[in-house]
Amino acid sequence: MWTQHELTLRPVRRGFHLITREVVAAVPELASVGVGLLHVFIQHTSASLTLNENASPDVRRDFERYFNHAVPDGWAEYEHAQEGPDDMAAHIKTSLLGPSLTLPVRAGRLALGTWQGIYLCEHRDQGGARKLLLTLQGE
Amino acid sequence: MWTQHELTLRPVRRGFHLITREVVAAVPELASVGVGLLHVFIQHTSASLTLNENASPDVRRDFERYFNHAVPDGWAEYEHAQEGPDDMAAHIKTSLLGPSLTLPVRAGRLALGTWQGIYLCEHRDQGGARKLLLTLQGE
Amino acid sequence: MWTQHELTLRPVRRGFHLITREVVAAVPELASVGVGLLHVFIQHTSASLTLNENASPDVRRDFERYFNHAVPDGWAEYEHAQEGPDDMAAHIKTSLLGPSLTLPVRAGRLALGTWQGIYLCEHRDQGGARKLLLTLQGE
Repeated sequence: MWTQHELTLRPVRRGFHLITREVVAAVPELASVGVGLLHVFIQHTSASLTLNENASPDVRRDFERYFNHAVPDGWAEYEHAQEGPDDMAAHIKTSLLGPSLTLPVRAGRLALGTWQGIYLCEHRDQGGARKLLLTLQGE
Repeated sequence: MWTQHELTLRPVRRGFHLITREVVAAVPELASVGVGLLHVFIQHTSASLTLNENASPDVRRDFERYFNHAVPDGWAEYEHAQEGPDDMAAHIKTSLLGPSLTLPVRAGRLALGTWQGIYLCEHRDQGGARKLLLTLQGE
Repeated sequence: MWTQHELTLRPVRRGFHLITREVVAAVPELASVGVGLLHVFIQHTSASLTLNENASPDVRRDFERYFNHAVPDGWAEYEHAQEGPDDMAAHIKTSLLGPSLTLPVRAGRLALGTWQGIYLCEHRDQGGARKLLLTLQGE
């Protein structure tokens, strides 16, 4: 069984945001899959996806602090600077975190660990709406 | 063909550990797959998976050195500090390295390069047993 | 439907290189898949794959600058130094960026965003030819 859905996420402020609920709600066929995989893909180069702690908002704020420190906006060595100080940093963060997640499905549900949630990582100051493509397969 | 197995890894000390053999042994159906994919997923937010050099133990020790330098324990900027100095660093390392691997299968075996091995990346001082979910599909 | 192809990329200089066209050309069955996934896997531990901006060459040069800064060649703390100053750095960069991409397929084409292209990330000074294994599945 294969199914594919587009999901457009409303614009969010720069930072890390839990979107597990939106993703699951967009794939109603999940409930009928006994064993399978859900592929979650973001069609952008300045926002990314990761899986991490789903409980404490301070973890998500620390992600934003850490990545701003590790990949500085407006670094003097950037050659690609004409689209704003956050642009090149956003591209690099996107590749460090990645554009997709592949998640196991079991008995009609995502088989995540207790503390795992899906993060939308918005790396631009004005990222706008972001498009995901969700591909579910299984039996 | 789909199959899914849980694999619980015994506790290991903080660092990078080769687990290719344990993973392969936990999926006996691999031998009957001509073309397929094996998805290896860790159900935690402070330990991760990666693929790297399977021969020299000094490579794995250098991974531990590098990541401790790049993502320091107890960084003064962390807000999420109540679960110990290694906790927030472990969350960040987990997202940098990622919670899953998707590996090609061919002629009944993982089609890895000569030097590629699966690493369990244990980012906590006392991580405990870690649970993997292995999903195999193919024909 | 499953199909698998090997693709050997000619040697390139150290840095980040667009390879979307070579990858697509190596999987002619893409055109007959309505919904599916393409798994792109590199069988090496000192070169990696990522998805990022496909238009400006300066973005790819900034990737090289950034990763050389973040993961220095010949770092004094590396224990694994006998294979040259770029070797251990190449292993770490490979794990930060990752050995594979899983890409959605829709209506006979890769369903990438407008600006997304596949990068071969060559982390060694003399990396040589690199082997990819491309696994397509879908219906």
